[in-house]
Amino acid sequence: MKQLQDRILKDGKVKGTSVLMVDSFLNHQVDASLTRQMAEAFHQYFSHKGVNKILTIEASGIAIATFVAEVFQCPMVFAKKNSRQNLPDHVYTSKVESFTHGKVYDVLVAKDFLSPDDRILIIDDFLANGAALRGLISMVEDAHATLVGVGIAIEKAFQSGGETLRQEGIDIYSLARIASMSEETGVVFAPELPTTAKTP
Amino acid sequence: MKQLQDRILKDGKVKGTSVLMVDSFLNHQVDASLTRQMAEAFHQYFSHKGVNKILTIEASGIAIATFVAEVFQCPMVFAKKNSRQNLPDHVYTSKVESFTHGKVYDVLVAKDFLSPDDRILIIDDFLANGAALRGLISMVEDAHATLVGVGIAIEKAFQSGGETLRQEGIDIYSLARIASMSEETGVVFAPELPTTAKTP
Repeated sequence: MKQLQDRILKDGKVKGTSVLMVDSFLNHQVDASLTRQMAEAFHQYFSHKGVNKILTIEASGIAIATFVAEVFQCPMVFAKKNSRQNLPDHVYTSKVESFTHGKVYDVLVAKDFLSPDDRILIIDDFLANGAALRGLISMVEDAHATLVGVGIAIEKAFQSGGETLRQEGIDIYSLARIASMSEETGVVFAPELPTTAKTP
Repeated sequence: MKQLQDRILKDGKVKGTSVLMVDSFLNHQVDASLTRQMAEAFHQYFSHKGVNKILTIEASGIAIATFVAEVFQCPMVFAKKNSRQNLPDHVYTSKVESFTHGKVYDVLVAKDFLSPDDRILIIDDFLANGAALRGLISMVEDAHATLVGVGIAIEKAFQSGGETLRQEGIDIYSLARIASMSEETGVVFAPELPTTAKTP
């Protein structure tokens, strides 16, 4: 998506060869207008897929996912990072390893909000190694819901998460795919994906 | 706001006399359509106040705040709960006591995203004792920004946070104000507030 790529080139900050700071428009300060454009792009791609629920994970996925839910006219659910010693009852749960923070944490979704009738579109801001995404997918499977696909704002295509999950048959639509980056050369994007999903 | 009050009566779950569960439409599963109506109500109240930035705190404030930012055509910033041992540089920070979780945590906003030119509307889902709100206000003051007002979805008016902050001159607009609640009698609302702020 050109608007997102342009914004990354303008305001993203590269640290080393694997960290991209986008906290001026995506995950600390949020540009609502760009978020709206991203939601429309996800809708265009997945509009014919019968999506009836959006699933994301707190915190930075929430802004995009809420807009996507509005466009699809369906509810949004955000998985919570568990901070309690004991897991509450009646939740689906999964363990996620955070490479950024170097620890493993539990994420959870109340069983009331995922059901076998749900056709779920997962939305998140970043995809790198795919750890958070696998946690969400595992809860969708536990609920016997249908995973329609995954919409990602920025994919670090030089890490293996996206490719591995696509090989497993998951339809991942990323709006900006980074082929490589460094402080010297900046961000190099991979070719854009088709803007509409294949009809199954 | 009638739509929010009706939804609380329909889907809110009262536990004891102080806990209201609204996780089916506000802070776990999110109703985007209701969120849109809340954003419009905040805009109607604060539209003539020159708001140029929305500030909230992760995670459950983000959905509402992003919609509000879109209506005001300005950026949204969400304060982060610090999970690191050491605070990063270049941030405003404040300590917030969580009565729900029984602990004190740091919240932070990068200094880049709050400035003396900002006219800030704070948005959050709940106001009870006001601890989180005081943390946000303290960072606005540290940045020498102007606090225009505060928009709250649900105020527990039987706790003192809102009343105390209003006495300090802060314009708090709450869409649903709960006078009292219990598992036997359900939720009783306080009278609605005027839907437009006074002109200063």
